[in-house]
Amino acid sequence: MTSERPAVHPGWLPPEAFAALGARRALVCGAGLLVQTVRDELAAAAARYGGKVTAGAAAAGPAGPAGAAGAGAPELVLALAGAGPLPGPAAAVLAGHDPAADALGDEGFLLARRAGVTVVLADRPAGLLYGLFHLVRLGPAAFGPDRALERHRPVLRHRMLDHWDNVAVHPVMGQVERGYAGGSIFWRDGGPRRDFERVRAYGRLLAACGVNAVAVNNVNVHATEARLLTDRLGDVADLADRLRPYGIRVHLSVSFAAPVMLGGLPTADPCDEAVRDWWAAATRRVYERIPDFGGYVVKADSEGQPGPFRYGRSHADGANVLAEALAPHGGVVHWRAFVYNHRQDWRDRSTDRARAAFDHFAPLDGRFRDNVILQVKHGPIDFQPREPVSPVIAAMPGTRLAVELQATQEYTGQQRHVCYLGPWWSEILRFAPWGPGGSTVADVAAGTAYEGRPALPGTVGGGGGGLVAVSNAGDDPFWTGHPLAQANLYAFGRLAWDPGLDPLAVLDEWIDLTFTPSTTRDPRLVRRILHEVLDDSWRTYERYTAPLGVGFMVRPGHHYGPDVDGYEYTPWGTYHFADRDGVGVDRTRATGTRFTGQYPPPWSHTYESVQTCPDELLLFFHHVPYRHVLRSGVTVIQHIYDSHFAGVEQVVAMRDRWRRLARLIDARLHARVSQRLDEQLRCAQEWRDQVNAYFYRKSGVPDAHGRRIP
Amino acid sequence: MTSERPAVHPGWLPPEAFAALGARRALVCGAGLLVQTVRDELAAAAARYGGKVTAGAAAAGPAGPAGAAGAGAPELVLALAGAGPLPGPAAAVLAGHDPAADALGDEGFLLARRAGVTVVLADRPAGLLYGLFHLVRLGPAAFGPDRALERHRPVLRHRMLDHWDNVAVHPVMGQVERGYAGGSIFWRDGGPRRDFERVRAYGRLLAACGVNAVAVNNVNVHATEARLLTDRLGDVADLADRLRPYGIRVHLSVSFAAPVMLGGLPTADPCDEAVRDWWAAATRRVYERIPDFGGYVVKADSEGQPGPFRYGRSHADGANVLAEALAPHGGVVHWRAFVYNHRQDWRDRSTDRARAAFDHFAPLDGRFRDNVILQVKHGPIDFQPREPVSPVIAAMPGTRLAVELQATQEYTGQQRHVCYLGPWWSEILRFAPWGPGGSTVADVAAGTAYEGRPALPGTVGGGGGGLVAVSNAGDDPFWTGHPLAQANLYAFGRLAWDPGLDPLAVLDEWIDLTFTPSTTRDPRLVRRILHEVLDDSWRTYERYTAPLGVGFMVRPGHHYGPDVDGYEYTPWGTYHFADRDGVGVDRTRATGTRFTGQYPPPWSHTYESVQTCPDELLLFFHHVPYRHVLRSGVTVIQHIYDSHFAGVEQVVAMRDRWRRLARLIDARLHARVSQRLDEQLRCAQEWRDQVNAYFYRKSGVPDAHGRRIP
Repeated sequence: MTSERPAVHPGWLPPEAFAALGARRALVCGAGLLVQTVRDELAAAAARYGGKVTAGAAAAGPAGPAGAAGAGAPELVLALAGAGPLPGPAAAVLAGHDPAADALGDEGFLLARRAGVTVVLADRPAGLLYGLFHLVRLGPAAFGPDRALERHRPVLRHRMLDHWDNVAVHPVMGQVERGYAGGSIFWRDGGPRRDFERVRAYGRLLAACGVNAVAVNNVNVHATEARLLTDRLGDVADLADRLRPYGIRVHLSVSFAAPVMLGGLPTADPCDEAVRDWWAAATRRVYERIPDFGGYVVKADSEGQPGPFRYGRSHADGANVLAEALAPHGGVVHWRAFVYNHRQDWRDRSTDRARAAFDHFAPLDGRFRDNVILQVKHGPIDFQPREPVSPVIAAMPGTRLAVELQATQEYTGQQRHVCYLGPWWSEILRFAPWGPGGSTVADVAAGTAYEGRPALPGTVGGGGGGLVAVSNAGDDPFWTGHPLAQANLYAFGRLAWDPGLDPLAVLDEWIDLTFTPSTTRDPRLVRRILHEVLDDSWRTYERYTAPLGVGFMVRPGHHYGPDVDGYEYTPWGTYHFADRDGVGVDRTRATGTRFTGQYPPPWSHTYESVQTCPDELLLFFHHVPYRHVLRSGVTVIQHIYDSHFAGVEQVVAMRDRWRRLARLIDARLHARVSQRLDEQLRCAQEWRDQVNAYFYRKSGVPDAHGRRIP
Repeated sequence: MTSERPAVHPGWLPPEAFAALGARRALVCGAGLLVQTVRDELAAAAARYGGKVTAGAAAAGPAGPAGAAGAGAPELVLALAGAGPLPGPAAAVLAGHDPAADALGDEGFLLARRAGVTVVLADRPAGLLYGLFHLVRLGPAAFGPDRALERHRPVLRHRMLDHWDNVAVHPVMGQVERGYAGGSIFWRDGGPRRDFERVRAYGRLLAACGVNAVAVNNVNVHATEARLLTDRLGDVADLADRLRPYGIRVHLSVSFAAPVMLGGLPTADPCDEAVRDWWAAATRRVYERIPDFGGYVVKADSEGQPGPFRYGRSHADGANVLAEALAPHGGVVHWRAFVYNHRQDWRDRSTDRARAAFDHFAPLDGRFRDNVILQVKHGPIDFQPREPVSPVIAAMPGTRLAVELQATQEYTGQQRHVCYLGPWWSEILRFAPWGPGGSTVADVAAGTAYEGRPALPGTVGGGGGGLVAVSNAGDDPFWTGHPLAQANLYAFGRLAWDPGLDPLAVLDEWIDLTFTPSTTRDPRLVRRILHEVLDDSWRTYERYTAPLGVGFMVRPGHHYGPDVDGYEYTPWGTYHFADRDGVGVDRTRATGTRFTGQYPPPWSHTYESVQTCPDELLLFFHHVPYRHVLRSGVTVIQHIYDSHFAGVEQVVAMRDRWRRLARLIDARLHARVSQRLDEQLRCAQEWRDQVNAYFYRKSGVPDAHGRRIP
């Protein structure tokens, strides 16, 4: 045994990813912290690859190097608008740019290439940083043929990762709740971890995929973590200092009961004047310490967390008191819509957890302050591998909504299974809640879904609430436990920047950056195999787990592996109602919980009818006989058998393909993935056999193909 | 909040239980530690109730008080044989006693009363102590009409409680594994608790019901606990010092890997000379410190514990190496027969956990040393509320067997449910493995089962292995969490002393001692209600939980509350195989796992046939259709419904009856039981509804009486 720590994997920023940039003569114009970051990144690359970085616009007057195209002339210019005159070629490249028309905002940039000079221009420092990482992605292509002027701007303004990291190890949930990548990057054993190099490296990776906000602690706020808001604020400031150079603002999960827990007040009633004052004062102290603090994240009245219900107040009252405290400082409240009765009686079929967020929040539309972002899980239940899109997303035109995804693979294989979530997230973001061709989920998150319609009363300004994911990163040497789960972290950032991106093209980016030609033999083969392993992996996972959207057939508590009845007779509101005749949850208006009525047309109709409901969501919306024929033409029971046999076969194929990568890629990474694929196969077989056996025992219908069901 | 500790309940030894004794003039003859205990007990009672205790025989020569029947003459004499001449009347009482014929052994005593003098005579000090507590049970009756000479001797020599107490709090199992009565009496947070007053009080309670041995730590021996054998031995000695005055010998659970863990040897191979020497030396050191040390308890090759299999050795080899070390000092090894594959594949229906103990141990019969006691769980699985008697009990004439019961209510309501186990234990102990009229389980435990038969080759001496129970006591003020669970602890001791006792008569004893007339209003009503609540409570529990002996429909891990499929697809070997057609485990020779063949006739035949198998064990032995008609005349499915509805109704009645005790008994005790009855009712309803719903969904058969099944 050695006490040496294993080297941390560079993720999608290995030094080799900077080879093209590092070989150029670069000029960086502008000043400020993030411009300095750009300059430092380029300087490090240049030191490795023989390029040169010239500092600042001041040294580059119109008569100087700017006019010359000689040996010393820059091949790459990154400039902040207004930082001084650009070198001649760079200025020419940008000639077509109309600053008034091309509003780049805080984070956008222009990119063009002409006459051997590649130019990035940004109005604000963060734009220059994102421009730099865009060049990294382009690699040599950034220095190839001319490129017409391109305007890049993030579609979503808020691109946040929520860390469910605990400061003190929780007796049940551990250091990181639902964490599958070792410990926390930020915290350990009750205090800050102080591995600031790692924090900075994390921020750098996030910036390179587009994330601009991080919530540094678990939404379930326990006693120790509550104090991050007050006497432990310094620990948060330390993190903010390390993430700031990469344009990342720090957010904090706070307890709604903080005025009582920390302030010693007798109440946390949001309408109480002293409570209001307490939040205002506490927030003021936060901004004194962290001037660019992002804001609060709140899980209230949910799974045991305190909230406004206790005081007979609404969630608008609750969110607004915090928003009011944050408003003078430019902060936002991410208020989670994940509110439901987690002590439901399984015998009561009239209560439907799927309805809960809509029932609680839709009536409050228009009542939230501008700087409240209502953070809505993408589906109505809880991050299952297949759910319909939450109807809340289409129900609140007068509220800024953020869509919450789960990068940490709680229900998708816990980073022991390969499960590339990009395609799933893309499906969600492209979903059109008002029907095909209309606005999408991404439009809601962007704040543009209602553009062109008459302004609704109470419609808020400030754009959409963006995209949030629960982080899948930890102190694991590969960051994400399963090395291939890095692709999910990367894809989240990229889809948050532009939800219209093709998730397989995003995967290409990730592969090309991570498996650089210089460290990879036969990169084309590697890329092909990685695509074969990853592209369909989410659907493979879906196939061998809970069928047809029914969800939640997992082991209670830890949620890993199958247990068909595991949640069937529990208070958690997650049932499948399988009996000897059929399976599924009747959520129709006609005979069920009326959940379908929470959708606008056409979905309210599409989901209502077994004839039109998509197969993959059939059991989410309907209770059907086992011999019900799917739109695909096979019966439900045969589909269960077929998909489970197929899913396992696909894992076998996945593992065979992975074996072919041995000796083509980094051995340590290959070995780690190989181990996990063994476990994935074992677990997939367990899923297949339990689900098939369960439904065979219930239905009595044999497999049409005579395969073995135990 | 007050920091005062709540007063510890006196259990079945309230001061009032000594009223009759305490009012008498008593003479105690003899010397030694336990005689001193008797004298101290009587002195304390006399101080309270006005009696008088005269010390020793020396002061009572034949010409002295012995001859006089005046005001100073003793009304009660407790004498050790050979302690000197008895007072005249006492000598007369015992005139018929032939010491040679009436061998009283270490723990027996004679009792008689004549001419106003009650006399207890014992050969050994422990007998005098048990005689004293017998008088306590008799109360005023000990001083009523004359009593002819009675000879009392324990039927079972070893009457042991195993404490599954951890020294260090286990991250999953806590301070006491399967403990439902607070913390440990012995240990807390990694070290000794040092509440020796409580330890002594516990020993006193145990002596008063007949227990004479205690294993002070969990059979799952973790790192800290392993060291009780060596550098933490002083902590064990401290306990032995406090239990010794009540005739209780201390035993220690040890790790089979101790030579490696503690001794630094490269192996724990029982056939290795160095290992043998290590055990001999370690054991010698134990006896130097604790001369009356009882011996070791070992769980080997079971649920992850180390054992001889690792070295390719048999369990006889493993047990014998420890036995050899203990033999010179008079100690015994309790070697547990609970060995099975806990990583079974649920898909493999050929493996049957019920077979495991027999398959492992029966072939080893005759190969264990005399001072090995093979400790066999009463049933073939694991302390379910209903199982057949383990076939191991009838399979090993050449081995000393102890029968292991579970007083801690792991599977019988976890001391939140009223469940008086006396009737269940009595059924087990009276069971005749070779058929009605033959020797019983109790005879096996007593070592008398094979008396009168020709001596078998390899038959050991030393008597039977006795009775063991996992203790249900902890540091709870009521000792057992549920105050009524004290009855189980009491009944265990009494049935271990005499398995032929009527468990309801034992309950009478417990009621009369615990609810003394002086602290109880209307004692007759109290006794009647307690009987109504307790007598049938085990069968009530059986009714609302897993049906017809199928067992194990509990929540995995903690084992509280229902989860019909909770263990169905797990590696634990505990399945019910319910499908849409039927339920139960086929353990027949004809078509199943052949487990029935492990029984001698007639049971091998009785259990083999669905026609003759007792209803209450039907699903343990057979897989039958839901419409199979039981011997009782109803179908299996209707029995499931009926018994579950009935069970809940009985809990309702139990609770109503308990309410009638308000203001008749101690208010704190009444309140505690009331709270637990509320929980019992809630849980019983949950059991009823889950089990009924599960089987209705599977079978599709409606309740014949149209009751609501959710």
